[in-house]
Formats: sequence, C-alpha cells, structure tokens
Amino acid sequence: SGLVHIKNPHLDSMEEDVLYHLDLGTKTHNLPAMFGDIKFVCVGGSPNRMRAFAQFMHKELGLAGNGEDLADICAGTDRYAMYRAGPVLSISHGMGIPSISIMLHELIKLLHHAKCRDVTIIRIGTSGGLGIKAGSVVITDMAVDSSFQPRFEQVVLDDVVVRSTELDKDLTEELLACSKEIPDFPTLIGHTMCTYDFYEGQGRLDGALCSFSSEKKLEYLKRAYEAGIRNIEMESTAFAALCGLCGLKGECSHTP
Amino acid sequence: SGLVHIKNPHLDSMEEDVLYHLDLGTKTHNLPAMFGDIKFVCVGGSPNRMRAFAQFMHKELGLAGNGEDLADICAGTDRYAMYRAGPVLSISHGMGIPSISIMLHELIKLLHHAKCRDVTIIRIGTSGGLGIKAGSVVITDMAVDSSFQPRFEQVVLDDVVVRSTELDKDLTEELLACSKEIPDFPTLIGHTMCTYDFYEGQGRLDGALCSFSSEKKLEYLKRAYEAGIRNIEMESTAFAALCGLCGLKGECSHTP
Repeated sequence: SGLVHIKNPHLDSMEEDVLYHLDLGTKTHNLPAMFGDIKFVCVGGSPNRMRAFAQFMHKELGLAGNGEDLADICAGTDRYAMYRAGPVLSISHGMGIPSISIMLHELIKLLHHAKCRDVTIIRIGTSGGLGIKAGSVVITDMAVDSSFQPRFEQVVLDDVVVRSTELDKDLTEELLACSKEIPDFPTLIGHTMCTYDFYEGQGRLDGALCSFSSEKKLEYLKRAYEAGIRNIEMESTAFAALCGLCGLKGECSHTP
Repeated sequence: SGLVHIKNPHLDSMEEDVLYHLDLGTKTHNLPAMFGDIKFVCVGGSPNRMRAFAQFMHKELGLAGNGEDLADICAGTDRYAMYRAGPVLSISHGMGIPSISIMLHELIKLLHHAKCRDVTIIRIGTSGGLGIKAGSVVITDMAVDSSFQPRFEQVVLDDVVVRSTELDKDLTEELLACSKEIPDFPTLIGHTMCTYDFYEGQGRLDGALCSFSSEKKLEYLKRAYEAGIRNIEMESTAFAALCGLCGLKGECSHTP
C-alpha cells in the first residue's frame, strides 16, 4: 500500500497523539492536509543546514514564492527544526542515536497520521571519512556498529533487542546513478560505522579523555577500513533500524 | 589545586586546540580572559531554556546591563548555545548521551585551557518522574543505567570500559539545604535512571514501535521505583562519569 507501518497496537486506542518534540499533534493540527503529499524526507543534524537545504530544494524545484523565508514548522519547540519545499520535508535531528530516535519515532507517526504513501527518507549528514578523498560522498550500503556488525542493539525496558540495519539497495544504486550525472562529484558506496561517542569512540586523540596511543587508533581504523567501512558518524544504525521496521525506503549519504 | 584534570597525554603536544562544536579555540580566542573566572556551569538540553536561565541568573546576581540581550558565545555554530552571567556559564547539550558527551569533552578542555579553579557543574534538565508529585525536583545521588546499575559503559575504540557514575555527596546535601530555604519547593534526593531511548527505553506506549503491554511497562517501572529510582532522563550517567573522571564537582537536578 506504500503506507508507513506503525508497530504499536496501543496507538489506535489513543484519543490524541501529541508529537511533543515536534510541537505537532492530531488534535491541534490537520496532519493529512499539512503533510499528506510529502514524498521525500531529508534529515541531518544541524537546524541551520536543514533550513539551507530546504531553501536549495525550493529553488531547484522552481517553486513559487520566496524560498529565503521558509517557516520552521516546529517553531514552537527548539528540539528540532522542520521545513518543507514542495513534496520534500527537511528536518534536523541533533547529534547521536538517542536524539535522532526521538525525532524518527515522531516523524514516522506524523507520516502515518498524514496517510503519506511511498515516502523515501535520506539522511544527509556530515561524517568522518576513512581512507577516501576529502569531499567525497559516501552512500551507505550497510550501517554497522563499533564492532563492524550490521546491527542495532535497542534496549526495550531492560531487554536488549537486536535489529537489522539494512538499507534499501535500489535506492543506493539510484543515488549512485544520480551522482554520476553531476561532473566532479566524487561518490562511492561503502559501509558506514555508527558510534555512540565522537572522541573516544571514533579514535580521536584530542578529547578531554584519551587512553589509547596513536598506533592503537590507526590499527583500529585500519581494521575498520578492511571491513569495508568508508565513513564514521553517529546516527546511521538507529536510522536504518527504525526506517526498516516501519517500511520507509531509507538511505544515508554523507560528506566527510 | 582545584584545576580540571585532563586525562589525555596527547593534548600537551598539540599546537592548537579547536573546540569545534563550540566554535572556540586556543588560537582564535583568549580562553583564560573569557572564562578564567567561571565558578559554576549549568547545563540543560534546550538552547532557549539555557538562555532563559542565564537571563534569570543575570537578574538574580544583580549584574549591570540588560540581561535580556545576552550574546550566544557559540553563535558561530548551531550545535550548542552558551551564555554567561557573572561567574555562571549556561550551556545547552541537546538530547541524549552522545550529544552531551561531545559538549562535555569540549567544555572540560575549555575549563582546562582557561585555567578555571573549583568549578561546580550542575545539569538542570527535565525528566520523567517516578512515583513522585509532579513539579518536584529530584537531586540525583546516583545515576544508574537501564539495568539500575550505577555504571556507564563507554565504548573506547572497540573495547567497552565501565565507569563510575557517582556524584558529589556534599553538593547533593548542599542543594537539598538550599531547596529548604524556598517555600513550596518540593525537593527530594533519589537515583536517576538514564536511558538511550525515550520511547521503548522508558516504557512509553505511544512511540512508533511498542512491543510491550501496559502491564509489562508498569512492572518495569515498579521495579525501578523499588531500586530507588525517582526519575528517568537521557544524560546523567555520561555526565556523572565524565565530570567524575575530570575532577569536576558535579550534580544533576531535574524537574519531572
């Protein structure tokens, strides 16, 4: 049917659904009217960048009106920012798995309430590159954890549930084909490693704490490269797991 | 000496330290002049609330000038916001452990470079209360994980390191004594549980995914209450671990 799958039997019996961190709700907003025609959702960490992306999309799509003064749809909260340009929604998610997870839970319910169909979601973020030319774009074929495994460990109450982090193969190929139409746009497909920590978790030597040597760092990053990892960031496993479970066609592409 | 402890042997040999996510650095800013007299750092998730808190402190301290137009010291980035009012620094950290960790690594290095002494750091955030009156303030005596254990598991490269989440006992008592001077200010000391997820991790029935029953949720929260937990949030274990290791006198107090 192309609809989003909500896997929560409790939701049907709720009189109202407040999407608290987006400052939207089923009683306060007409979600089908506001969002029913959305076909693409692009997400990234920084609110300013996601506004700039929406402005760019507004121009690229040749939409009427001034793309410079797009309104933040989530203006009532400073947790996330959301802009739209035609069928494209552009949303910030902050940094790290917990932050993107809150946004995705509420976004998925938003798309469900709005009865959106055939939605494609793409994370367009920054990342650290691994053995690739600076400025290259990595299209993720598989999100892996810090042990290089394609899994996302989700704590549900006090149980650990392991979820798949597979992304949409057709979309990966489609994005790569698009990139080839643009001159001087170095793009590659690779695994993306997702960590919980920016400093100690990604082998940085310049945090407030660092207990490993430069050699140990390089040895780890070399092993990551050999496992097919081409960039490192902090959201992709949760993104892949949540989108996959809810039937959203999802992809990550990052500029290191 | 009261100085912050940096536990990173690589830092001394670096020519410049760029605190990237704060848009500050040792070559671009005179950090001792800007921050050398800071004695208190208050942190919370939302940038707007941390600005409002700095404005409130400005008034409370009777500082000269208009507290309404305090400048964001991190204006060059939208990752975090930072304001100061006299000896008090007020900084946002976004949501979740990865987000607060990046900020704390860079804040701790900032306090080190600025040669600050005897700094007290307090997380003042929102949380979900557990069996307590709404509006109560919980002062955390111990931050625990989703298995109710006072520990923070940090992935360093691909090793898991377990860190203590003890907070400053004297500061806990001092804050409780302060709260008693204010009429109608319900305050208690309790354990704070820190989770990686807001919906499935905290027993919410209204996420995009929910695989447990209302009974299973209540059973988990009851066990948490019996273990001494009085509120749930998403940053306290990392906060306690990082501040503890770096010799910062730290405390969390939350309004559910």
